[in-house]
Amino acid sequence: MINKRPGRVEIIAVGSELLTPHFQDTNSLYLSARLNDLGWTVAFKTIVGDNAEDLRLRLREALRRTELVIVMGGLGPTGDDITREAVAGALGRDLVLQRDVLEGIEDRFRRRQLPMPKPNRKQAFVIRGAAVLPNKNGTAPGQVLMVGRKKIVLLPGPPHELKPMCEESVWPALGKERSGHFSRAVLKVTGLTESMVDALISDLYPKRADLGLTILASPGQIEVHLSAFSAGSGVLAEKKLRRLKSKFMGRLRNHVFSETGDSLEEVVGLLLKKQKKTLAVAESCSGGLISHRLTNVPGSSEYFLEGAVAYSNAAKIELLAVSPDLIKTHGAVSFPVARAMASGIRRRARADLGLAVTGIAGPTGGSPEKPIGLVFTALAWPGGTEVQKNLFLGKREQVKLQSAQKGLDMVRRHLLQNARSKKRRNR
Amino acid sequence: MINKRPGRVEIIAVGSELLTPHFQDTNSLYLSARLNDLGWTVAFKTIVGDNAEDLRLRLREALRRTELVIVMGGLGPTGDDITREAVAGALGRDLVLQRDVLEGIEDRFRRRQLPMPKPNRKQAFVIRGAAVLPNKNGTAPGQVLMVGRKKIVLLPGPPHELKPMCEESVWPALGKERSGHFSRAVLKVTGLTESMVDALISDLYPKRADLGLTILASPGQIEVHLSAFSAGSGVLAEKKLRRLKSKFMGRLRNHVFSETGDSLEEVVGLLLKKQKKTLAVAESCSGGLISHRLTNVPGSSEYFLEGAVAYSNAAKIELLAVSPDLIKTHGAVSFPVARAMASGIRRRARADLGLAVTGIAGPTGGSPEKPIGLVFTALAWPGGTEVQKNLFLGKREQVKLQSAQKGLDMVRRHLLQNARSKKRRNR
Repeated sequence: MINKRPGRVEIIAVGSELLTPHFQDTNSLYLSARLNDLGWTVAFKTIVGDNAEDLRLRLREALRRTELVIVMGGLGPTGDDITREAVAGALGRDLVLQRDVLEGIEDRFRRRQLPMPKPNRKQAFVIRGAAVLPNKNGTAPGQVLMVGRKKIVLLPGPPHELKPMCEESVWPALGKERSGHFSRAVLKVTGLTESMVDALISDLYPKRADLGLTILASPGQIEVHLSAFSAGSGVLAEKKLRRLKSKFMGRLRNHVFSETGDSLEEVVGLLLKKQKKTLAVAESCSGGLISHRLTNVPGSSEYFLEGAVAYSNAAKIELLAVSPDLIKTHGAVSFPVARAMASGIRRRARADLGLAVTGIAGPTGGSPEKPIGLVFTALAWPGGTEVQKNLFLGKREQVKLQSAQKGLDMVRRHLLQNARSKKRRNR
Repeated sequence: MINKRPGRVEIIAVGSELLTPHFQDTNSLYLSARLNDLGWTVAFKTIVGDNAEDLRLRLREALRRTELVIVMGGLGPTGDDITREAVAGALGRDLVLQRDVLEGIEDRFRRRQLPMPKPNRKQAFVIRGAAVLPNKNGTAPGQVLMVGRKKIVLLPGPPHELKPMCEESVWPALGKERSGHFSRAVLKVTGLTESMVDALISDLYPKRADLGLTILASPGQIEVHLSAFSAGSGVLAEKKLRRLKSKFMGRLRNHVFSETGDSLEEVVGLLLKKQKKTLAVAESCSGGLISHRLTNVPGSSEYFLEGAVAYSNAAKIELLAVSPDLIKTHGAVSFPVARAMASGIRRRARADLGLAVTGIAGPTGGSPEKPIGLVFTALAWPGGTEVQKNLFLGKREQVKLQSAQKGLDMVRRHLLQNARSKKRRNR
């Protein structure tokens, strides 16, 4: 049977910590986005503590109102992990030890050369009638069960377990049940502020109910989320989306670094790979964040040769061959020192490109001439160098984030320019 | 009347935007913090869309379970602001136009030299029997009403309206009713798995209603949250908490790296400062994450001299003076190379301590003898070196996280050991 209206979902997050001032549920943002893609509407989000009675009540209420209930968290091995027991209790079903799940958990510990602690045995119990969702990244499997025509899904709380489980097992199953099609795209922009983006595209904001737009800003990055809906066909939704996207791309052009969800470090990695170039990085105020981000990308050892976190002047002099006089004359946070650092790390590592960042991240170290947030980013390549002076707002971590983003974007824009001039030469 | 146990609260946020992937309710973090201070426990947090029927149901359920229900949002002037009507409907009461509220709203517009738009008249309607909470920063007043012995508070959604209203009207009133006090502490543990922690402390889990415990696990870190409640006095709550904490500390001992909320990098930084020692870091598989974390701490330039992200073998040989033969014989991911990297960076940077990490973060590069997740962490100090072999589970980023955590913890344990042997010598 194909449903004509979007099905309603309740998302229940279990965990007393989520009721404190210190923790925020973020899984539900991911779940909402993917559920919407599949044509489901999130009608309620609820947070319950590690209290079996509260969860039992909430689950029964949820089943009365929605067609799908997703319960996440509380599947761990300890005494305060109560989700399995509470859900079984609410449905009047018992828990059954599932041999293959137990063996899977034992095997995980064996691979770490550890004995399985006794409490983990609890995670091999499955509610009678439920199907098991394998967990590649943890010991707690997920579970899916039907209660009449209603469906309940139990998921582990840690995002790095929940997301892969959803991608592999949950969404493919839900996708089959519903119709109504959403197409979505995210344009990731860097190098412009939120108001600059707004000024470029505000006259394009869609006014039709079947087209959606949301703008999300974070330090150094603006995301433009576009969506198109068709009740009848996925092809039509996709076509509407393409038309909408091309209008926005016409304005935002190469300020958009990704249309596919890739992070800036992934985009830079792909460009380096494609152009068979290598990169080395010298970081002062970004403190290792650029290297960390670059090496988060699998396969980065192909193009990322080395990083130097040259916090002290001695390190700048010895590792990067920056002249002591240059530092004495201009200060470590200066245009010429940034350039010397980029050239220095490029030569040291025998890399094609050298990227350098030096600045004042705060909270101390600022002065009227060199305020907190003053950051020089520099790039060196075989033919020359480029240095940019930036003034970033925010606290230490925001300044680090924006510095890293700017540095990576300089590499991206340089490589794009490179590809374009090569093309021109070849014509 | 003084209540003997903490009162339970449900916080309901109203707004369809809070059910999308793009918006997060943050008011509830503020509300939880202040409610806890006053001795209330948040038992449920719920988000409902702009749907009167859904809110009516949810409110009735909430009143069955909790003594206080806070409903925020949906008090605006437009058609999709349904809170007033839905709450009145759920209670079977009517809405009454309140003259002085209407005059207040008209006055706000007059001061801006604007006529009051017609829809704003709606905001002057108050549920029969409710008291009005003045809003100095907006047009929507709050409302408080009693339903039997249960209390309902309606608050506007914008934080700059909600917070002052709470400070001026809501907390003073709630404070008078309750006299409970909470004390809380967080023990942060590293170097043990969640089940190892559970095995050490499970017999200590409090069974009394006035003592609380939650355990939170993330890669390389377990947090034990403890709380104690006293109806009578803050001093007593504090005393109960101290007793509870000391029991847990007796078991967890120096696996606890922080009792004050500090991160591991902050704790390491404090120890280095106190002992006037400097640190340099050589990272292969952790890819700059250790340097990034260390430099997130303000003032880290005092003790952190430099970091080398030595991804290539050439970098290990040239920067860290690791012998090429050692790499050829044992491989870059090996016990002796880890040791040589730690000694190498220590000498290069002329630091007191040298920390090194080399391993296989995946997703490729694993083999039967050297699987993905195999990580060697090494520390070098004036008197010697220590190398540890680790097997971490998870994807690339989890392996990086756990590697960084383990490396920083080796520094911490070494410095603690140092302080203890010094003390012993001085006796």
